[in-house]
Amino acid sequence: MFPQIETIFLRQMASGDRLHLQVYKFIGAQPGKKVYIQSNLHGAEVVGNAVIHQLIEYFVSIKDTDLIGEIWLVPVCNPMGTNERAQHFSPGRYCPYESKDWNRIFWDYEKEADDLLSFSKLQLDLSLEEIRQNYLHLIQEKFTKNLTQINSAASVPYTERFRYQLQSLSLDADYLIDIHSSNNQGLDYVYYFRHREDSAKYFLLDFGILLNKYDGDAFDEAFIKPWLALEDCFQQLGQEIQFDIEAWTLELGAGMQMNPDSVVKGIQGIKNYLAEKGILQTDGLPLPASKSHEMYFAESRNRKKYYAIAGGMIQSRVQLGTQVKAGDKLYQILSFNKENQLPKLIDVYAADDGLVYDISTNQAVNQGEFVLGIVY
Amino acid sequence: MFPQIETIFLRQMASGDRLHLQVYKFIGAQPGKKVYIQSNLHGAEVVGNAVIHQLIEYFVSIKDTDLIGEIWLVPVCNPMGTNERAQHFSPGRYCPYESKDWNRIFWDYEKEADDLLSFSKLQLDLSLEEIRQNYLHLIQEKFTKNLTQINSAASVPYTERFRYQLQSLSLDADYLIDIHSSNNQGLDYVYYFRHREDSAKYFLLDFGILLNKYDGDAFDEAFIKPWLALEDCFQQLGQEIQFDIEAWTLELGAGMQMNPDSVVKGIQGIKNYLAEKGILQTDGLPLPASKSHEMYFAESRNRKKYYAIAGGMIQSRVQLGTQVKAGDKLYQILSFNKENQLPKLIDVYAADDGLVYDISTNQAVNQGEFVLGIVY
Amino acid sequence: MFPQIETIFLRQMASGDRLHLQVYKFIGAQPGKKVYIQSNLHGAEVVGNAVIHQLIEYFVSIKDTDLIGEIWLVPVCNPMGTNERAQHFSPGRYCPYESKDWNRIFWDYEKEADDLLSFSKLQLDLSLEEIRQNYLHLIQEKFTKNLTQINSAASVPYTERFRYQLQSLSLDADYLIDIHSSNNQGLDYVYYFRHREDSAKYFLLDFGILLNKYDGDAFDEAFIKPWLALEDCFQQLGQEIQFDIEAWTLELGAGMQMNPDSVVKGIQGIKNYLAEKGILQTDGLPLPASKSHEMYFAESRNRKKYYAIAGGMIQSRVQLGTQVKAGDKLYQILSFNKENQLPKLIDVYAADDGLVYDISTNQAVNQGEFVLGIVY
Amino acid sequence: MFPQIETIFLRQMASGDRLHLQVYKFIGAQPGKKVYIQSNLHGAEVVGNAVIHQLIEYFVSIKDTDLIGEIWLVPVCNPMGTNERAQHFSPGRYCPYESKDWNRIFWDYEKEADDLLSFSKLQLDLSLEEIRQNYLHLIQEKFTKNLTQINSAASVPYTERFRYQLQSLSLDADYLIDIHSSNNQGLDYVYYFRHREDSAKYFLLDFGILLNKYDGDAFDEAFIKPWLALEDCFQQLGQEIQFDIEAWTLELGAGMQMNPDSVVKGIQGIKNYLAEKGILQTDGLPLPASKSHEMYFAESRNRKKYYAIAGGMIQSRVQLGTQVKAGDKLYQILSFNKENQLPKLIDVYAADDGLVYDISTNQAVNQGEFVLGIVY
Repeated sequence: MFPQIETIFLRQMASGDRLHLQVYKFIGAQPGKKVYIQSNLHGAEVVGNAVIHQLIEYFVSIKDTDLIGEIWLVPVCNPMGTNERAQHFSPGRYCPYESKDWNRIFWDYEKEADDLLSFSKLQLDLSLEEIRQNYLHLIQEKFTKNLTQINSAASVPYTERFRYQLQSLSLDADYLIDIHSSNNQGLDYVYYFRHREDSAKYFLLDFGILLNKYDGDAFDEAFIKPWLALEDCFQQLGQEIQFDIEAWTLELGAGMQMNPDSVVKGIQGIKNYLAEKGILQTDGLPLPASKSHEMYFAESRNRKKYYAIAGGMIQSRVQLGTQVKAGDKLYQILSFNKENQLPKLIDVYAADDGLVYDISTNQAVNQGEFVLGIVY
Repeated sequence: MFPQIETIFLRQMASGDRLHLQVYKFIGAQPGKKVYIQSNLHGAEVVGNAVIHQLIEYFVSIKDTDLIGEIWLVPVCNPMGTNERAQHFSPGRYCPYESKDWNRIFWDYEKEADDLLSFSKLQLDLSLEEIRQNYLHLIQEKFTKNLTQINSAASVPYTERFRYQLQSLSLDADYLIDIHSSNNQGLDYVYYFRHREDSAKYFLLDFGILLNKYDGDAFDEAFIKPWLALEDCFQQLGQEIQFDIEAWTLELGAGMQMNPDSVVKGIQGIKNYLAEKGILQTDGLPLPASKSHEMYFAESRNRKKYYAIAGGMIQSRVQLGTQVKAGDKLYQILSFNKENQLPKLIDVYAADDGLVYDISTNQAVNQGEFVLGIVY
Repeated sequence: MFPQIETIFLRQMASGDRLHLQVYKFIGAQPGKKVYIQSNLHGAEVVGNAVIHQLIEYFVSIKDTDLIGEIWLVPVCNPMGTNERAQHFSPGRYCPYESKDWNRIFWDYEKEADDLLSFSKLQLDLSLEEIRQNYLHLIQEKFTKNLTQINSAASVPYTERFRYQLQSLSLDADYLIDIHSSNNQGLDYVYYFRHREDSAKYFLLDFGILLNKYDGDAFDEAFIKPWLALEDCFQQLGQEIQFDIEAWTLELGAGMQMNPDSVVKGIQGIKNYLAEKGILQTDGLPLPASKSHEMYFAESRNRKKYYAIAGGMIQSRVQLGTQVKAGDKLYQILSFNKENQLPKLIDVYAADDGLVYDISTNQAVNQGEFVLGIVY
Repeated sequence: MFPQIETIFLRQMASGDRLHLQVYKFIGAQPGKKVYIQSNLHGAEVVGNAVIHQLIEYFVSIKDTDLIGEIWLVPVCNPMGTNERAQHFSPGRYCPYESKDWNRIFWDYEKEADDLLSFSKLQLDLSLEEIRQNYLHLIQEKFTKNLTQINSAASVPYTERFRYQLQSLSLDADYLIDIHSSNNQGLDYVYYFRHREDSAKYFLLDFGILLNKYDGDAFDEAFIKPWLALEDCFQQLGQEIQFDIEAWTLELGAGMQMNPDSVVKGIQGIKNYLAEKGILQTDGLPLPASKSHEMYFAESRNRKKYYAIAGGMIQSRVQLGTQVKAGDKLYQILSFNKENQLPKLIDVYAADDGLVYDISTNQAVNQGEFVLGIVY
């Protein structure tokens, strides 16, 4: 099956050149769920582009009867981030003009919602699907007001224009997958939201982190928080509901890299997830491993980042993926000085048990720069 | 009188070199209020360094009996920001490693305060000065906990180390003055907080903006918000109090510039303020103008920034300081293209009445970049 | 008359987005000289875009019989430079990936020419126009070899691809005008090459600098040096010739600015130049002032740049455009320290007489940064 | 033995903070050759800091009678480069203010030398050591003139101040070792100059590149070129001489990394070199392997860099260290577009046989960015 391909204007530059987004839409023979997948929101996190490319190749190779619903794919979804360079490096994690993390800019309906509890009361007797439709309508109505501001004389900073485009494409999705990697050197894992452990396993990764401490206005958060908030309202009203709406951030290895092993894991995980969800209906999927897959789950509020306690060079650091115990040595700083002293070695020890899930690519640190991350 | 000068270690760099702060403390013969003045928190906003330098020269020229209380001055208070260059420019508004605005990083006691209302109830019968002492004690106790984290193995990102140093010096001040300028081209004016209009006039500037919509974690905000919060609690308890605690951000002209006229206004304003507050007791101060000085006051929630609705070059823009009416032409974009068309001129008109208080230095804009700011 | 407008592919970015050049070609009713005009080669030097825009508007307003020959205009000729931002500033003077000045990258035939003297001997009896044609053929033949390298598997760094596009458009021009400004704060003046003083005056500017010390591989140099070299060869052979080939760099004021006065001077100068050259044949041109215009000429080898002898803040600097005498005070550094000393004032005096033709926009300097330029 | 440690003032920053160099001098009991070793001239190339640190530890552990001559070590020799950050990366290969490669700024006596041939004629009957002394005197005399310019009112840009400090320390060395790494991902190898193959082997690396095509003003070049030029003069005069003066650039692996294996190779190589040169006289050195060590030699003029022929993502690239044949596939570009097409795969093949000695860390490329380097 061949996708519909749409090119969407994103930004006119000072030179008159224009940046665009391009969406690949695979529409199944039967209607169903909408899946939205994007990659490279942070400029250095390029691995997802290979994943999406190979997914496109795969979808092109199957028939539209193998697909229930539709899958929208947006690789290189942030041209400003992807194309930026500082010497040979890709510093495009942040918008340098506005000094904003490209993944902390999204519009979160929950923050603007009017009285959700009153709304919920009116929905108590409706079916889950009816509630979903009504609520989505509410979200979209509010979202559309952003366009008024964008088109006004004062307009908006670029990050608000940009988010509008990405969220226009994804706001009504059922399942949303945002493919990232560490900016540094990271494990392959998935960020998920409450009560989605079972679906998380479909990605066949060894490790997942529950997002229970929000960074604020991240793409996955901004998508799912309004739905979790509505679930909360129903709970307050004595009714337990759960929407079949899911948001995932896949983390696949290292920044500026497309590690072949991470790419394979990403593709396999997404295909298996789509099959488990009944969207892909092809031979060999879901994978047999899917049933018995075991995962290690941690919580985002239990992430602890270690920052250099002195300036210098990091050496003798624990390997990525190590399970450390409190008191284990984590790394050593080779610290130079300009006070006529010999260089000094400073050892740093773990304050808690946990898994080393992220380490800095750069072994040179000014005091207060990131060295490694532990989660439990 | 000669100041006590103290040099405070700030950061060890990867190379082993060290950055410091230097504080000039003028201690009057009689104890009294503490004034804290700093400059150049944003790297491009250098004008305050000239102001502080000339204040130092002035204080050196007077006697310690002319000063009641003490004045602490910290010029070039952010070496990381001041020293950064992008080609010939000073982009040091943001920490490029953490992507944070250097003036949105400060520790705000109000956000961590335990039950303020309960605390207030216990203070109802005390004098204002006793309440101030008790509350300051509470703030400092909490603040000190930051040090525990700084000194732990995981430590903190540099911005938290940096803010700790600046706030250590200023947390117990009575009056705090943070000298900024526009990053672009701005008027000379003062940001002030509620109920401080009368003191605002002491600076003898033509224009002031009331901060009633907070940016979040700015230096002036973080200092005064806890005190305003306590005043609110007392009001809830039926008692109107106002601490003689004030925070000011002076905005003196353009970025990367030390406009002599802005420097003169800054020095004159601060000296007059100190005299009106009874801290400086010298001939000729307060200035006669002080009594009758008229100011135009606006509100921060009524600031509106205009962002370029297309990429291109800004021309025919209204002058800084213009009072515009809704419908007035504000500027024109000369917009080029790469689609075989002639360049296009796009006119942009004011949506509201107001004062043009800030305009971009850079006349080239990518779509969504800052063009000018209006306030009313 | 309406221009032919051509859009030329320049670069594919990592995101798949593409950058282009756009050329506006005004073709006169009668054939004649080719004039090539571009602007904004350095990212911050935007003033020429307004000049070119108004020239386009002017040419559109005249008839093709008013034009002898053709005029090609390329505004915003360097999208990579124009669109780059560091915070609100335009640091696009350099290619950050290759660390090259965008105006020191051009292909200079003189450096690759085979035996020019032998070639010259064969041309001794030919007319100037025949020599021009033969030599241009030689240059173009060699130039075309760049394309082989560009299209090879190893290809070339972007700067070589970029220069190829700009030089493809301009290599066969008779008159070439590259509109720049200071990156900082500069006067309005023109850079010219030997024996072109008379033509230089056509631009009606007050000041010109003869380029007799080359920066190396600048756009104007790379264009004209081969022709000057050939003139030298003929001189060695006892024959004085001068091609009617001219290269100009117009400097129009300040970086990031399109000062209306500088724009007017640029447009007036170029129109008058074109009229004096017989390319524009319209009423009112050349301007009457043209005949009697006086200019001050200096030499590029007599430019002296002053770099900060200490770190600090620049104040009390002489005004742009001042004629200084050796021994005059040029500026003062307000120098802070971290060694418990009061700030220090350091005065710097002129070593030579000369004209202050350029001053830094940024008044903060690390030691060894640019403060001002003098020429005589 | 304990080193003399000297701290040398390098630069005052705008904030008043100061940068320094620190030199560790180990002085043997007997006089002899002077060895100069530095690291981290390029900001991202930190590996040499670990090498120098462990060399310092080693020298501290031996006796001064084990050392003939003296060894000067300067780790983190470029604070501006080492401390610079763009997001988490170290872009400090270039001075961002002057847009210069920190290793293409050095003072090269050969370019300023007066008539070397005349000088040589006067030295024909002298001993090699006398010639060395006389020539060194000449070089130093000229070098000192830089100081006059540095101390003048106009002073010099920072890169010239910086180079002066490093070259002051090293100009009179006999052996100079500059420890670098790839900015990207590179092999462990050594750059050497003509006729020094035998000494090159002392470093016990598998691979060396003869510098016969100069980059211009690199640290090693600027040091040795004057001596090679003098050797040339003597040859012209019919006398073959070779000074026992050597310059080496060690390349040890990847940027931002201190790969333990590369560190070990660097330390072992330098110790063995010093022992073979008779400077270190300790047990176990030179290493037995030294005698029979085989090396693969290539030439710098046969380096070919491959630049991306399209924008996109690099995948399926040959491994670092591969010996390729012309026609072998080198890499593939996954190229996205914004023209409604499917992504495209572009294969790139080797134009020549050779060794893949360097590959980009960043797998995202704008068109014309570096992908890999081959040498033969």
